[in-house]
Amino acid sequence: RRAAAVRDAVAAALRSGDIDAPRARRTRPAGVALVGAGPGDADLITLRGLELLRQAEVVVSDRLAPQELLDLLGDDVEIVDAAKLPYGRHTTQEQINAVMVERAREGKFVVRLKGGDGFVFGRGAEELDACLEAGVPVEVVPGLSSSIAGPAAAGIPVTERGVVHDFTVATGHVPPGPQSLVDWHALGAGNGTIVLLMAVKNRAAIAAALMEGGRPGDTPVRIVESATTKNQTVRECELSDLGVTEAHHPAVIVIGAVAARGRNR
Amino acid sequence: RRAAAVRDAVAAALRSGDIDAPRARRTRPAGVALVGAGPGDADLITLRGLELLRQAEVVVSDRLAPQELLDLLGDDVEIVDAAKLPYGRHTTQEQINAVMVERAREGKFVVRLKGGDGFVFGRGAEELDACLEAGVPVEVVPGLSSSIAGPAAAGIPVTERGVVHDFTVATGHVPPGPQSLVDWHALGAGNGTIVLLMAVKNRAAIAAALMEGGRPGDTPVRIVESATTKNQTVRECELSDLGVTEAHHPAVIVIGAVAARGRNR
Repeated sequence: RRAAAVRDAVAAALRSGDIDAPRARRTRPAGVALVGAGPGDADLITLRGLELLRQAEVVVSDRLAPQELLDLLGDDVEIVDAAKLPYGRHTTQEQINAVMVERAREGKFVVRLKGGDGFVFGRGAEELDACLEAGVPVEVVPGLSSSIAGPAAAGIPVTERGVVHDFTVATGHVPPGPQSLVDWHALGAGNGTIVLLMAVKNRAAIAAALMEGGRPGDTPVRIVESATTKNQTVRECELSDLGVTEAHHPAVIVIGAVAARGRNR
Repeated sequence: RRAAAVRDAVAAALRSGDIDAPRARRTRPAGVALVGAGPGDADLITLRGLELLRQAEVVVSDRLAPQELLDLLGDDVEIVDAAKLPYGRHTTQEQINAVMVERAREGKFVVRLKGGDGFVFGRGAEELDACLEAGVPVEVVPGLSSSIAGPAAAGIPVTERGVVHDFTVATGHVPPGPQSLVDWHALGAGNGTIVLLMAVKNRAAIAAALMEGGRPGDTPVRIVESATTKNQTVRECELSDLGVTEAHHPAVIVIGAVAARGRNR
């Protein structure tokens, strides 16, 4: 159903007076394009990302990239499911890098399709390095990050004039403590909006650390699950209750005054 | 030239095997769509944003929205240049809200086209409120924010595994001091990447406040001007030199270890 909606969207975009007959196809790009596919809804990919995807000969895809986009590909396109690469003595990331580089060296145009934006907790930097080190041409196409689009889908602006003029996006996949690279206490001490990704499991410990840093326990919180998709769910709580409030992955957690503006649409 | 590139991109997207003949146009949406147009390059708009733009009967456009997108509109589309609305006893924002609501109440489908993302320092929340209060149907379509896409366009990831797991986006349009809503000292005390928008004028005072908060003076900084456009320029400095380093609006300023990764492409 969604794939049909995407096709409709593309078709609608095409049916314009100023686009005449199809032109000669532009030369296929070379090397690798690291394309952010957006937060979940397939038609939130960028126009450039979609164009490159349509030219791809190999697509290395994430679990979090909208699967409907893969349905648009021709049968001759090789799809490598990065989530299914076997574990061995190399990490999966190394295998992803190796597949991209190998295929590009064979002369194929490779699209690495990632959920959200590849440079927001997406290890896109490592993939960029792998291509540069291998001498493979590489282009970065940013995608909508769920850190901003997820709150927006629930009617929550991450900033608001007269209310808050900064927001911090942090990953919660490592709990507060010596292993975490995030200074949770400093984050708690500030006034800005806090947006957490991958924080469902560690939400109790993170809330505690933010409150220790100075963030009030009655700070409004919204948990946006499966943001922008038809399964989107928004839950409400306060920071002091975050640890005991139901939450399911994938979720974007918004903490701050703006969270109370959420319209639960 | 860019408008032609956008048309080519759309046309290329359309020339797929699985999009057959044009289908019946879907029912035109009602009310207002708040569409983020992305960071500057016209084909970084989302597919949904472009589709809505093509269905618009009225477009209320920002100075920062890619002007090439307006070139795609038919002659029958009313374009309201928000930057040219006259000042009077109301602020311009109130006039923008009034125009959107009035046209929507006339039965026209209105697209409010904004540079970047409307919820990142874009006053989208106020426009959303104006529509909701007037009982006008309103849809939010997020756009790529230059806060993430700007650094990406210079090869700079805002996060990186093993290096930094959080980033803060702040506006610098108000200098540090009692008028600022940003706690610059708390921001200086943390370890995360700092991304500044609208900070060219106040960059010296901001750098000083961040260093007072504890951020080292030798922290790498990159200034990405006109990000993603053909005029993109990247300047390098350290935090202690930021105030005396040349910079021109519009610029995204990236502060932190990841800034040193920039490839100046």
